[in-house]
Amino acid sequence: MKAQRVDMFVCPSATPADTSGLQALADAGKIKPDTLVALVGKTEGTGAHDDWGRVWADVALRDWTAKFLGIPVGEVAKHVIFVLSGGCPGVITPHIAAVTREWLDVPDGSQDGEKRLVVGRAGSDAITPEEVGRMGQIRKVADATHKAMADAGLTDPKDVHLVMVKVPGLTTASIADAESRHKTVVSHDLTFGPEGAGAYANDAAALGVAMALGEVPESKLADDVVRRDWDLYSEVAMTSSGGEKRHGEVVVFGNSTSSASALQIGHAVTRDFIDAAGVRQALRSAGLRFKDGLPDEADLSRLVHVFAKSVIPGSDQVRGQRITLLDDADAYQIGKALGGMLVASVTGRTTNYVSGGERNSHQGPPGGNIVAAVVRAN
Amino acid sequence: MKAQRVDMFVCPSATPADTSGLQALADAGKIKPDTLVALVGKTEGTGAHDDWGRVWADVALRDWTAKFLGIPVGEVAKHVIFVLSGGCPGVITPHIAAVTREWLDVPDGSQDGEKRLVVGRAGSDAITPEEVGRMGQIRKVADATHKAMADAGLTDPKDVHLVMVKVPGLTTASIADAESRHKTVVSHDLTFGPEGAGAYANDAAALGVAMALGEVPESKLADDVVRRDWDLYSEVAMTSSGGEKRHGEVVVFGNSTSSASALQIGHAVTRDFIDAAGVRQALRSAGLRFKDGLPDEADLSRLVHVFAKSVIPGSDQVRGQRITLLDDADAYQIGKALGGMLVASVTGRTTNYVSGGERNSHQGPPGGNIVAAVVRAN
Amino acid sequence: MKAQRVDMFVCPSATPADTSGLQALADAGKIKPDTLVALVGKTEGTGAHDDWGRVWADVALRDWTAKFLGIPVGEVAKHVIFVLSGGCPGVITPHIAAVTREWLDVPDGSQDGEKRLVVGRAGSDAITPEEVGRMGQIRKVADATHKAMADAGLTDPKDVHLVMVKVPGLTTASIADAESRHKTVVSHDLTFGPEGAGAYANDAAALGVAMALGEVPESKLADDVVRRDWDLYSEVAMTSSGGEKRHGEVVVFGNSTSSASALQIGHAVTRDFIDAAGVRQALRSAGLRFKDGLPDEADLSRLVHVFAKSVIPGSDQVRGQRITLLDDADAYQIGKALGGMLVASVTGRTTNYVSGGERNSHQGPPGGNIVAAVVRAN
Amino acid sequence: MKAQRVDMFVCPSATPADTSGLQALADAGKIKPDTLVALVGKTEGTGAHDDWGRVWADVALRDWTAKFLGIPVGEVAKHVIFVLSGGCPGVITPHIAAVTREWLDVPDGSQDGEKRLVVGRAGSDAITPEEVGRMGQIRKVADATHKAMADAGLTDPKDVHLVMVKVPGLTTASIADAESRHKTVVSHDLTFGPEGAGAYANDAAALGVAMALGEVPESKLADDVVRRDWDLYSEVAMTSSGGEKRHGEVVVFGNSTSSASALQIGHAVTRDFIDAAGVRQALRSAGLRFKDGLPDEADLSRLVHVFAKSVIPGSDQVRGQRITLLDDADAYQIGKALGGMLVASVTGRTTNYVSGGERNSHQGPPGGNIVAAVVRAN
Repeated sequence: MKAQRVDMFVCPSATPADTSGLQALADAGKIKPDTLVALVGKTEGTGAHDDWGRVWADVALRDWTAKFLGIPVGEVAKHVIFVLSGGCPGVITPHIAAVTREWLDVPDGSQDGEKRLVVGRAGSDAITPEEVGRMGQIRKVADATHKAMADAGLTDPKDVHLVMVKVPGLTTASIADAESRHKTVVSHDLTFGPEGAGAYANDAAALGVAMALGEVPESKLADDVVRRDWDLYSEVAMTSSGGEKRHGEVVVFGNSTSSASALQIGHAVTRDFIDAAGVRQALRSAGLRFKDGLPDEADLSRLVHVFAKSVIPGSDQVRGQRITLLDDADAYQIGKALGGMLVASVTGRTTNYVSGGERNSHQGPPGGNIVAAVVRAN
Repeated sequence: MKAQRVDMFVCPSATPADTSGLQALADAGKIKPDTLVALVGKTEGTGAHDDWGRVWADVALRDWTAKFLGIPVGEVAKHVIFVLSGGCPGVITPHIAAVTREWLDVPDGSQDGEKRLVVGRAGSDAITPEEVGRMGQIRKVADATHKAMADAGLTDPKDVHLVMVKVPGLTTASIADAESRHKTVVSHDLTFGPEGAGAYANDAAALGVAMALGEVPESKLADDVVRRDWDLYSEVAMTSSGGEKRHGEVVVFGNSTSSASALQIGHAVTRDFIDAAGVRQALRSAGLRFKDGLPDEADLSRLVHVFAKSVIPGSDQVRGQRITLLDDADAYQIGKALGGMLVASVTGRTTNYVSGGERNSHQGPPGGNIVAAVVRAN
Repeated sequence: MKAQRVDMFVCPSATPADTSGLQALADAGKIKPDTLVALVGKTEGTGAHDDWGRVWADVALRDWTAKFLGIPVGEVAKHVIFVLSGGCPGVITPHIAAVTREWLDVPDGSQDGEKRLVVGRAGSDAITPEEVGRMGQIRKVADATHKAMADAGLTDPKDVHLVMVKVPGLTTASIADAESRHKTVVSHDLTFGPEGAGAYANDAAALGVAMALGEVPESKLADDVVRRDWDLYSEVAMTSSGGEKRHGEVVVFGNSTSSASALQIGHAVTRDFIDAAGVRQALRSAGLRFKDGLPDEADLSRLVHVFAKSVIPGSDQVRGQRITLLDDADAYQIGKALGGMLVASVTGRTTNYVSGGERNSHQGPPGGNIVAAVVRAN
Repeated sequence: MKAQRVDMFVCPSATPADTSGLQALADAGKIKPDTLVALVGKTEGTGAHDDWGRVWADVALRDWTAKFLGIPVGEVAKHVIFVLSGGCPGVITPHIAAVTREWLDVPDGSQDGEKRLVVGRAGSDAITPEEVGRMGQIRKVADATHKAMADAGLTDPKDVHLVMVKVPGLTTASIADAESRHKTVVSHDLTFGPEGAGAYANDAAALGVAMALGEVPESKLADDVVRRDWDLYSEVAMTSSGGEKRHGEVVVFGNSTSSASALQIGHAVTRDFIDAAGVRQALRSAGLRFKDGLPDEADLSRLVHVFAKSVIPGSDQVRGQRITLLDDADAYQIGKALGGMLVASVTGRTTNYVSGGERNSHQGPPGGNIVAAVVRAN
């Protein structure tokens, strides 16, 4: 039978355009043109939509990948999924994680019964501007999530621990297009603010994942629950959106007994913004050993990577006391930075993937956030 | 014999000028005009030198205290020391901690031999502009620290766990004064930047404490080690400076067997910016019970307050990986906020006193910070 | 007959709570308890909704006014209208302008036929949360504008040169109230962002003024033109909103032949963000002499005050070239500061009232802004 | 005889890496590999030292230029000088100005006696770390300025209207190098703050130009006047510094009767931060026609480009009134943006080169700034 072997390599970046870590992996034969499936990274810069650090990184990484794969730059997106999250305030080390997937021929029954990391990808049908942030997008992302699970060889939603999604947002042009066809759009605010189209797009994508995985029953979903009913959420969806896209892309990470990987993944959620226990629980879920209530120092070398959201809570209360985060002039930066600290204070390292800074989300429970961890199996 | 009983009450503030918590304490008889010795708090606002939140809080608290003590506002500073640290970014709840000290007649030998909280205060001799940030200031703060220890009834530096110091900084006027007398000043930069007079003033004050407590031998001290030789530092000094002051003020917190307090204090330092273990160690030092390597949830109710610095490291490396904190556009806010998260993620509460955001300091070891904790005795 | 004499005094503020300028005016008899009708000012601080500089100024000015009028603080709002605009970035000097109105007995026909400054005030009916940002608010502000014109003795809209309006915004509580009565609200976004309730409230108020003055025919007004159809606007409305208010307040400034004032007012609009000619036109409109195309230096001493908006254009183009203002991380501050520079570079002084920073508005034409000027008559 | 013909072309940039405008000029034969002498531009981004917009622009422009010249990227700096100033807050359009110089054979005496634009370049001797911000650097920049004048064919300092200089700054490495040789450095603060090495480097470079042009006599220059005696300054020097450089580069722009250019240059200084008259004077100096005290609209088409500094004044007073610019949280951005507005409000266009934001400088008089303008001759 065919079994997939997934690997993940984390390369710190000296500058946004630094591809030396990837080149070293390529030179060492660890990533190959036909095994590289995704590049997921944090890039230094403002984190805003005109974050030139992220844009430059994107250009440089696509150039490198095109050369590595021996194809034109325009073809790269068909082979490798890029998830670059801009902004590394505080203690988030800029880095790129390369994800590889290789198909091995293994004798039937040769697996040890342990669940190991698998990855699957799928594109959604085209999403129209009028669908963005609404049921149309939710359903198309749900469909694509099912397809990506199938590509990963996963059938049980419990085995899914992380779903990264990129969907179209709205632009001046796409709004004009929709309105010329007498359609309405979810918002004219193109920002990621509370009523921004970017926030709606991200959140509808998260609800699409939640629907696919049965975290939220379809019967509870409707246009007007998006960014309204915060009790509906996914515990594994990390989503982003961009105006330039026309369809969604979904990458599913999970564990399967039919995997030949040396890695495994787990996840948990934090219950509020200062909940280090939630981060610890994610490491436990991924199989890391604990000692005296804390990750065993000796075992931390098995930790490959952590993926975490740091969405700012919509409330000004944490455990009964008022905080001013919602009013901080630079709440977006601080919110992201605080997530980086929460994770780093547990993992003892700064090369964590932490995205966020926006306010409120269906990615994770109200006030809390999603944390996933990948660990090398014993 | 006379024994002091020190108490500490933490009041969250709804606005900078909110004195309702203090009034409630007064109404309940917990603070009295002749027992109130210090108000130490975090005020919401920009944290900058023109932070109107802090200025307004200062005005409102002095007004309230003058009425409470039945004295003119101008006399308040003789009776109560104010330490207001502006800026509560992230998860730092604005609050005021009232410190009271009462002298009790206790029978000789009635104490149980346990060390309990004591507090002592002293003013320094006047510090001239040309002494700011230099040996003159170091020596005068060291003298005042000795006097404050004596006031607290402390003789062994090991019993000192927190020394809060306020000293004069430089102003345009005080620089002109010094130069008219043909004296030089440590810097013409009036900011708290790397070469700013404010940073020099704070750091010379910290070295003054270090000298008084024997943390740094006098022989190693000289004008040109200030903000140069980071291996010289105090583990208990938290200092601030203001242009309006003419002499230093020192408040010492420690433990003594001759105290009749129900509280005790401890401290530790973090070894780097993500060192949650250092925060836990401070709680342990103060006497909090731990369970499975973490503060025992049931025992956390005994935790009265935490005082922590969050000085940004001068290096761009944390545990071997690069971070961009030094270059973050809002590093001052983010640096302070991250300290707040590090403490809150351990204490499980947000009403912690966390000041900082400046870069590099003799307050705490290179890259690390000071954490002190006050706990109600069992 | 009775004629009103209006005067205006501009006091720079040394701090947000500085009332010394007002006290000096009071001591000199220039403002009296029964003549003071409005305090309009710029306060230093962040300009955000939790701008403690503005809040402190508001508290201090109301306290001073209560003492000056000999009434309780709670009664002050019935006698004096406060318009405090927070944030003085760049070259905007913090200041308070006191507006006085006195009724004189003058012989019939004694006026010289010249139009001089008059002022009128009126409150609107209570505005419900569901009316905020919609036709209900537009109509109630229009009604109040008519009443304020009547109070000023103005009948011709052409004689109206500035209408300052304060209206209720939305709050968490008022939204809950509306929804408990099964009403919808214009936005759940409580900010002044593009889809924020604050922006909707301000803009509906501006359209209310435009309706009252015939700048926009009632037939073109509807809920869905607010913050959609930018071709509808007022050239004289400067509006603000606050969650604490329950009804609107309107102050109208205009010129009338029946005025006994020594001042006169004029206004103009800028056609885009760099249009200094628009500022010059406002000074001309107010009656200032020009020489060689520029305000006559010698005549500038007659200029009493300038009121200007600095709303950021919704487009990224100025005269055919791209600017990045919409994407600037601190666009709110920069947008306000640039308006301050545009005015100061023409008036040659920095004590101008300039509010703004928000994006797009019905206050002024698309891309342009409103400027009004008050001049002492020859 | 040989006469130089200098031309200047301003290309707005759609993104930091946009070279399409340059390519169009190349395609049209307006710039040629052997005529391109400098690229001077404003790039969008944070303007900070890690401004990835500027860094990316630099990489992309050097790549394009290398291809255009048919040489390796490493050789580009020998042929073309790059001056990229990061940050376009407010109304500064991102753009690149290409400067070309061509040597023509013209008959002796064929020139019309009018002074026209010339340009000259020179490198300085290597500048050691211990010389940065001190007399060593001042003298070497002065020498290079003389050489660049000679290269331009200029002998009279009055004919020099703009001198752009790039010099080495200090880095951690270069400080260590100096100190290993027992030399001191001007500052350990690597920022552009009031006592920052970057500010010292820029200001010593400005004084070097002032010395070369006789604006400041050598007898008044010494290490300790740099950033101390603000009465010493150049009216034509615009300087920048970077840690990667080892020697200085100087580009001189002036007018000469032996030029065959169609352009001419002029300059003036503003006397304070709101002095639009100073900007107008620069346009007049360059030969632009005025009408009614303002630039003649019809003649503005002859305006090719404006170069302006926008250094923040060290005082908090403008024409006798207090401003808060020095305390603005984002003073660096606002200070630069305000300069952009001052120029744009006069030129009626946003494609102006405006750099600044730092506090105090020997580039221009105390409180004022330098403005140079290039105009196409009638």
